[in-house]
Amino acid sequence: MVQLNFEKMGGLLPAIAQDVDTGEVLMLGFMNSAAWEKTLATGLATYYSRTRNTLWTKGETSGHQQVVKEIRIDCDNDTVLLKVVQKGGAACHTGHRSCFYQELIDNKVQIKDQPVFDPRKVYQK
Amino acid sequence: MVQLNFEKMGGLLPAIAQDVDTGEVLMLGFMNSAAWEKTLATGLATYYSRTRNTLWTKGETSGHQQVVKEIRIDCDNDTVLLKVVQKGGAACHTGHRSCFYQELIDNKVQIKDQPVFDPRKVYQK
Repeated sequence: MVQLNFEKMGGLLPAIAQDVDTGEVLMLGFMNSAAWEKTLATGLATYYSRTRNTLWTKGETSGHQQVVKEIRIDCDNDTVLLKVVQKGGAACHTGHRSCFYQELIDNKVQIKDQPVFDPRKVYQK
Repeated sequence: MVQLNFEKMGGLLPAIAQDVDTGEVLMLGFMNSAAWEKTLATGLATYYSRTRNTLWTKGETSGHQQVVKEIRIDCDNDTVLLKVVQKGGAACHTGHRSCFYQELIDNKVQIKDQPVFDPRKVYQK
């Protein structure tokens, strides 16, 4: 059993989600040990929400789950890389495929790519 | 000028380095505002070493710099993604191309890929 180093960041470690087919980096979240265990047990990427202080299985509101196809662990055992199938085609709550849709060019932000979905329709209250 | 959110993690934010050509995720480091500014000013990925409490321009010991070709910023302005050319062919201090050379399969770690260089030769004292 691999021992991840959660202590380095006070109980959390960064988890990168990457599209398993295209290689696009979709988002970065944080995991505590419970989120990590739940990800392993369910095969669905589960993070720890620092703002809500709770486990958060990606897609539980939007239906846009991340099905984990491959797990990589870095040399220090303090960061994980999940290669996933992104359900619904978009990881970002803004509707963009990737959360990294802002490109910095000459110190100015340019928005890349069009949203895949309308967040007002997906995140209805 | 973009305003990144360094406060969320006490002055740091995660920075992912990705090979601009292959899409391979090479490593994750942390940046404080000085590391970010130096990265922008020099075009070479510069991180903040949490263990050494100092700025660390990747490759300053090994010569294996990361030349930044594209900068992406996430939806919350608290994570950056650098698309880089990795000099020397390997990002990891172990000699592996990517720091994420450990794959978790059935709860066991398998080492993927062979090291590109011998760290004993590159990090000579």
